[in-house]
Amino acid sequence: MDAVAAEAGVGKATIYRRWRTKSELVADAVLALADQVTVLPDHGSLEADLRALMRWLVVSVNGPLGAAIRSLLSAMAHDPQLKAAFHGGPMEHWHATVHQVWTRAEARGEVRPGLAGTAVAATASASILQRWLFGVDPVDHAFADEVLVDVVLPLVAFTCPTRP
Amino acid sequence: MDAVAAEAGVGKATIYRRWRTKSELVADAVLALADQVTVLPDHGSLEADLRALMRWLVVSVNGPLGAAIRSLLSAMAHDPQLKAAFHGGPMEHWHATVHQVWTRAEARGEVRPGLAGTAVAATASASILQRWLFGVDPVDHAFADEVLVDVVLPLVAFTCPTRP
Repeated sequence: MDAVAAEAGVGKATIYRRWRTKSELVADAVLALADQVTVLPDHGSLEADLRALMRWLVVSVNGPLGAAIRSLLSAMAHDPQLKAAFHGGPMEHWHATVHQVWTRAEARGEVRPGLAGTAVAATASASILQRWLFGVDPVDHAFADEVLVDVVLPLVAFTCPTRP
Repeated sequence: MDAVAAEAGVGKATIYRRWRTKSELVADAVLALADQVTVLPDHGSLEADLRALMRWLVVSVNGPLGAAIRSLLSAMAHDPQLKAAFHGGPMEHWHATVHQVWTRAEARGEVRPGLAGTAVAATASASILQRWLFGVDPVDHAFADEVLVDVVLPLVAFTCPTRP
């Protein structure tokens, strides 16, 4: 709380008038991360939408938003208030954006119905997040393109079998 | 260090004789997590190998190994020694296991050559890890089966196009 007050250039009493505990302040800060999650304009095709979404994700995990979320991953397991703020804030915003990309593609007739929310739709972000948190190599646009071209797009092609 | 000594039933001096700092002790404990990573016997097919691998992953993220790794994810970003232990220990062991699954499949003629280490091979674990760390729904075997049947296996079928 001292550091927050110093950074804000106010007295600690001012901080405590707005947030009674450190937990409340952190939970509010986490909720506010939602504002940093992308809202995607319609790029006209699933491929263009996904490319923009994945570019945003690559830039974000490598920046301040990624650092903030990385620092939350461990703490959330022991703090239900923090977990609720994370899911109700940035994650809800993220899921809404991703959902919109898939429902737009469905409306365009680009993909079979019902893909939003499935394991197939989840592949656009999953490999990027895995490399970010568990990998050694950097998360870059070349890797995101590999995921898009070799994983996501083949899975949504009408001609691709759903079982081998 | 007090808690470790108490848990081990020895004096703190005994702990400090083996590990001079808390960081060294934690790094050694993280390296030792490698022993908990699965070694997979040959199940005779890629599908059976992947099913066993993914079942192991589902059980592990929900158990003590998952809790240990979750607690590392935030700390590693600021502790190069911890990061080195994580990558040189459990992650190296994991990558070796996964690599073996894909090279065995290649040797059986089940998949096109060169899939080990690619974004396609990474899909077997990525969606499970994503749901574990960022999802609300539990990581269970039903979800792992969905990933296997709807994502991984279609991507490795010879007849599946590499681009739509």
